[in-house]
Amino acid sequence: MISVVAFDADDTLWHHEIYFHRCKDELLGLLSKYMSEDEVFQSLDRTQQGNLPIFGYGVKSFTLSAIELAITASNGEVDPLELRRILELGKGLMAHPIEPLPLVVEVLEVLSQKYTLALITKGDLFHQERKIEASGLGTFFSSVNVVSDKTVETYETIVQKLGVPANEFLMVGNSLRSDILPVVKMGSHAIYIPSEYEWSHESVAPEFLTDVHFHQVEGIGECVGIIDNLNEQEPLSAY
Amino acid sequence: MISVVAFDADDTLWHHEIYFHRCKDELLGLLSKYMSEDEVFQSLDRTQQGNLPIFGYGVKSFTLSAIELAITASNGEVDPLELRRILELGKGLMAHPIEPLPLVVEVLEVLSQKYTLALITKGDLFHQERKIEASGLGTFFSSVNVVSDKTVETYETIVQKLGVPANEFLMVGNSLRSDILPVVKMGSHAIYIPSEYEWSHESVAPEFLTDVHFHQVEGIGECVGIIDNLNEQEPLSAY
Repeated sequence: MISVVAFDADDTLWHHEIYFHRCKDELLGLLSKYMSEDEVFQSLDRTQQGNLPIFGYGVKSFTLSAIELAITASNGEVDPLELRRILELGKGLMAHPIEPLPLVVEVLEVLSQKYTLALITKGDLFHQERKIEASGLGTFFSSVNVVSDKTVETYETIVQKLGVPANEFLMVGNSLRSDILPVVKMGSHAIYIPSEYEWSHESVAPEFLTDVHFHQVEGIGECVGIIDNLNEQEPLSAY
Repeated sequence: MISVVAFDADDTLWHHEIYFHRCKDELLGLLSKYMSEDEVFQSLDRTQQGNLPIFGYGVKSFTLSAIELAITASNGEVDPLELRRILELGKGLMAHPIEPLPLVVEVLEVLSQKYTLALITKGDLFHQERKIEASGLGTFFSSVNVVSDKTVETYETIVQKLGVPANEFLMVGNSLRSDILPVVKMGSHAIYIPSEYEWSHESVAPEFLTDVHFHQVEGIGECVGIIDNLNEQEPLSAY
């Protein structure tokens, strides 16, 4: 039986990566005199990965990495006004519009009448709080959790705090790495909604998905039926 | 009667602002060709304040503001390699040593035997979690709260979560603005330990301190006696 349904936020409840994508396109333009398109994307990913243990996730980390890349890629020749443009892109990302994706409000309305809803989102505390507020969706959630990373331990702590057994917990999200794998590993349920844009860091090699049982849907609207079905069957037998 | 004793982290349990201070000194060196010393400090404060609503608190926000200032102050003439140096200063701040201030361990050991201890710290989630871990003090605290700002509402939410009345809650910290005023306003107790270095943003004009009752001590060691004394008297009469 499911008693808690938890949702990821960025790209599950509202668009996020598309704004990064547009931002990266502009960065490509700025750096095209120093590197090929592929090199920009690869170097940006490498810089971000390298800085993750120092800066963590989020827009500010991305902005700092993008500035670092521009300086390195240009051998220190980049025009500082172009770096200011990157700063402005970062500020734009901090304030991009937050509009619930199609059917999100309807699904939360239906589910909140039957289940305890939780929000579990990774990244910058200040930014995530701002986005939750801007979305107008905060009131649907009994529990809002901004976490620095989404590991098995993260989910175990949350489930313990919520006071439910792992097999009564279901997570909905767009990242196999962050929303699905650790949750299934903990013995809980998960619904994967792939999103159009995905940061390569969040992707998972197919071999890690062997024997990992979760539901995959095309849109959030399908979650209601799946969760209701799970509750009409024996726990875990739905897979 | 006091049942929960909460502590601020940066500059209450370990040094923090001193590293910012050193970093600002180096920034001063980098920008001395464009501005006077006073202008650098004033402009840095102004830039940080202006960016607070966009980026929030923390080292990454500071680093982005410092880069912005260097570009603006130099009219775009700053050497990008100097900007890289600012980035490196930011990375250094993210990883500065965390050593408990004198008597912190002893005080936490004594108090944790009598009271529920909580940690309430403002800023970057990823960075604060890293510092708490590096401090080795995490196990003293039943409740660890990284918050984006410290307002009356923030403290009310925490006290409610802890399930204690406001007058059983006592906060220890080095910022009048963040650790003392909102806590006293809520009807709780507070012990103020001024620290050597204080960011101007955290200072409070004297007129806001009229009729605000709190304890002021020179070092954390004095807290134990004050809290024990409070518990031997009627609530609130200790002031």
